[in-house]
Amino acid sequence: MSITHSLTTSLSSSSSAFLAPSSFNSRGQVSLPVKSVSICKCVATPEAETAYKTGVTRNPNMGKLQAGYLFPEIARRRSAHLLKYPDAKVISLGIGDTTEPIPEVITDAMSKRSHALSTIEGYSGYGAEQGEKPLRRALASTFYSDLGIEEDDIFVSDGAKCDISRLQIVFGSNVKMAVQDPSYPAYVDSSVIMGQTGLYQKDVEKFANIEYMRCNPENGFFPDLSSISRPDIIFFCSPNNPTGAAATREQLTQLVQFAKDNGSIVIHDSAYAMYISGDNPRSIFEIPGAKEVAIETSSFSKYAGFTGVRLGWTVVPKQLLFSDGFPVAKDFNRIVCTCFNGASNISQAGGLACLSPDGLKAMRDVIGFYKENTDIIMETFDSLGFKVYGGKDAPYVWVHFPGRSSWDVFAEILEKTHVVTTPGSGFGPGGEGFIRVSAFGHRENVLEACRRFKQLYK
Amino acid sequence: MSITHSLTTSLSSSSSAFLAPSSFNSRGQVSLPVKSVSICKCVATPEAETAYKTGVTRNPNMGKLQAGYLFPEIARRRSAHLLKYPDAKVISLGIGDTTEPIPEVITDAMSKRSHALSTIEGYSGYGAEQGEKPLRRALASTFYSDLGIEEDDIFVSDGAKCDISRLQIVFGSNVKMAVQDPSYPAYVDSSVIMGQTGLYQKDVEKFANIEYMRCNPENGFFPDLSSISRPDIIFFCSPNNPTGAAATREQLTQLVQFAKDNGSIVIHDSAYAMYISGDNPRSIFEIPGAKEVAIETSSFSKYAGFTGVRLGWTVVPKQLLFSDGFPVAKDFNRIVCTCFNGASNISQAGGLACLSPDGLKAMRDVIGFYKENTDIIMETFDSLGFKVYGGKDAPYVWVHFPGRSSWDVFAEILEKTHVVTTPGSGFGPGGEGFIRVSAFGHRENVLEACRRFKQLYK
Repeated sequence: MSITHSLTTSLSSSSSAFLAPSSFNSRGQVSLPVKSVSICKCVATPEAETAYKTGVTRNPNMGKLQAGYLFPEIARRRSAHLLKYPDAKVISLGIGDTTEPIPEVITDAMSKRSHALSTIEGYSGYGAEQGEKPLRRALASTFYSDLGIEEDDIFVSDGAKCDISRLQIVFGSNVKMAVQDPSYPAYVDSSVIMGQTGLYQKDVEKFANIEYMRCNPENGFFPDLSSISRPDIIFFCSPNNPTGAAATREQLTQLVQFAKDNGSIVIHDSAYAMYISGDNPRSIFEIPGAKEVAIETSSFSKYAGFTGVRLGWTVVPKQLLFSDGFPVAKDFNRIVCTCFNGASNISQAGGLACLSPDGLKAMRDVIGFYKENTDIIMETFDSLGFKVYGGKDAPYVWVHFPGRSSWDVFAEILEKTHVVTTPGSGFGPGGEGFIRVSAFGHRENVLEACRRFKQLYK
Repeated sequence: MSITHSLTTSLSSSSSAFLAPSSFNSRGQVSLPVKSVSICKCVATPEAETAYKTGVTRNPNMGKLQAGYLFPEIARRRSAHLLKYPDAKVISLGIGDTTEPIPEVITDAMSKRSHALSTIEGYSGYGAEQGEKPLRRALASTFYSDLGIEEDDIFVSDGAKCDISRLQIVFGSNVKMAVQDPSYPAYVDSSVIMGQTGLYQKDVEKFANIEYMRCNPENGFFPDLSSISRPDIIFFCSPNNPTGAAATREQLTQLVQFAKDNGSIVIHDSAYAMYISGDNPRSIFEIPGAKEVAIETSSFSKYAGFTGVRLGWTVVPKQLLFSDGFPVAKDFNRIVCTCFNGASNISQAGGLACLSPDGLKAMRDVIGFYKENTDIIMETFDSLGFKVYGGKDAPYVWVHFPGRSSWDVFAEILEKTHVVTTPGSGFGPGGEGFIRVSAFGHRENVLEACRRFKQLYK
């Protein structure tokens, strides 16, 4: 690279000051010198000054982004830590990556489909961009039975994150968005990239022209909607990443009513719905009238360990209309056909197996395992006197460290226990003072991490 | 759906008049009445008039799009034809979909990876968004050895079409694009969607603010660059889809020089490079200086039959800089991390097997088979007195029907021979008067289609 960035590796920087990754290979690969560099220097080499530059102006929206995408940044810090402590047994309860093997009933189906592609009868090329019909049908009957969602309302994807970005392309730059604060960073970042926002306001740690709907212990992690000025699009994740809070039926009903009153569209991210223990709604379409105001995006990632296999889906009901009466689903379909070519047929075979009776049972077992991890983590922090939230309906535990910087706590935990967590402020200013601890991990690692937490905070 | 569109199914409409698909399930599913409807009617049902509408304004860029994406539209017409002639043996030489089984050396690797995901040792979750290191390394050494492209310049994707769209997100709305005319429709459509263009100009069948670089027999299918006003981004596909023409070394050198003179960036789509028979460059990076002005996108789809498996890659050299010196690769990496989560790990295992010595041999055998098909199709049309282009370096044959509408010829061939082709004007106004015949097909189908062509045009 012709411009050399020597980046700080200080782990005590605050969230808004954390820096763009210096390497493209952010996950698991570090290509920069790490030791004892503690000041940010941008050094232009002699070639850089004479290097050929095209005449193409950089997209100003890209320039608005403040930092590397959160999880690669955490991976970078993890790698830097490993360089500093090469013998440390680092445990990752950070990125929210699944760790348990995929049940065989599911991998058998993917293996079979792979082999079938070598036969004349079993070979298939381009599939429907919207997904294979049997999978769409199985999704409709498994998750939306009696909710009035039909199989042609369901678009199969390579994951919820990818569909969030495709939804942003559908809406374009002239919409105003609202997000829970804290929330999954892809909502805000994709909004910035699409040009929906103003500049980043350093003083409040927010982008201009986004409504940040504060969710905290005081309001039961459900925003005070009366204080929100009208948004076009509301990203709402329930059970929530990172707080672990699932909205109640009353709260979701309020949200749907708010959307209707304001003519807004809710994008309901239900990627953790199968982790719900009690009676809270698993789908926003359980709320009457939601089909006219809501989209729902979901994923096999955290149900079947498909974080690497890549499979998700998005429901865009045909009843959802733009202000001119044009169906949103028609534009989403156009984007799916133009910017995407369908999920891998092998992954789709796996998805179909997930929804068989044996597959569903196997998925529930894996989810049950992670929920036991959640209990262990919650009990640990609880026993240490921390206020602990989430956990019950989600694989995330949201631990309060009042008055402290999240990145400081993240760094302290990493330095002293070799456990990677996620700093709450990485999810927005409303996450400051919290740490998200993920329950995805082998049991012995979760137990060991909890032992170390008890050492550190006893 | 609350608005009922009864769409014309006349097969004689001209390219610019072809209509948006009436069904979301465009491939292989038709949900509209087809018989004897020949006038376009938009009938609002009573519910439609009273249906709830959100207050969200439809993205005006979506409204600019003139028609359904080309290939779903063709699939729709194919389905309509099947409804009309339920007993016809329809042969598809249209959409460019691979038909031959994937060699076992490749599916074995995918099957093995699937099974490994069921084991503690073999399980993996999120991979690097940019792709697995061994695959990036193998791509670099297989296709870019001695060209100065390094493995960290290569981003693995779920296909070239998806990366084209991600590249458009990187560039944003304030760039001016140039495309070969005719060309693969995703370039123009994604440009419209991103807001880079003006409205569609019906008289010339072009969008405003795109440079259409005419490629025809007269100029040897290489544009007259002296007539092009400065574009920011030049999409250049070689070997070309649909014309089948591969640029020579001199032509690509001219293109690189043109980009350098104008400060433009070339996006070189090399998805058919392995079909090149002679000495034409397989990669734009064979041209000195190209790393400072070019991106290259490619795919396993047409090499290994991965149209359904989904795997491709894009090379963004670190030497490629925006006008302010910021590396394009850094912004592309940010998009890959924020809007994508990596290609399926199972597909990547298949990709790695493709690049093993046995895999490469197997891919070359499949490509050789399709190239024999190409010869058969070329000889057929040649023997019937047509001017035939392409074929030598690409799996597409570009047949000239001077003075005739492409959609008329498409409809005539479908109606009289039950063979699906692709109308040239679907690729841009420069394709008018041509038909693209794809060489992807089982041998007996290609031979049978050619027999029928000989019947029709004897």
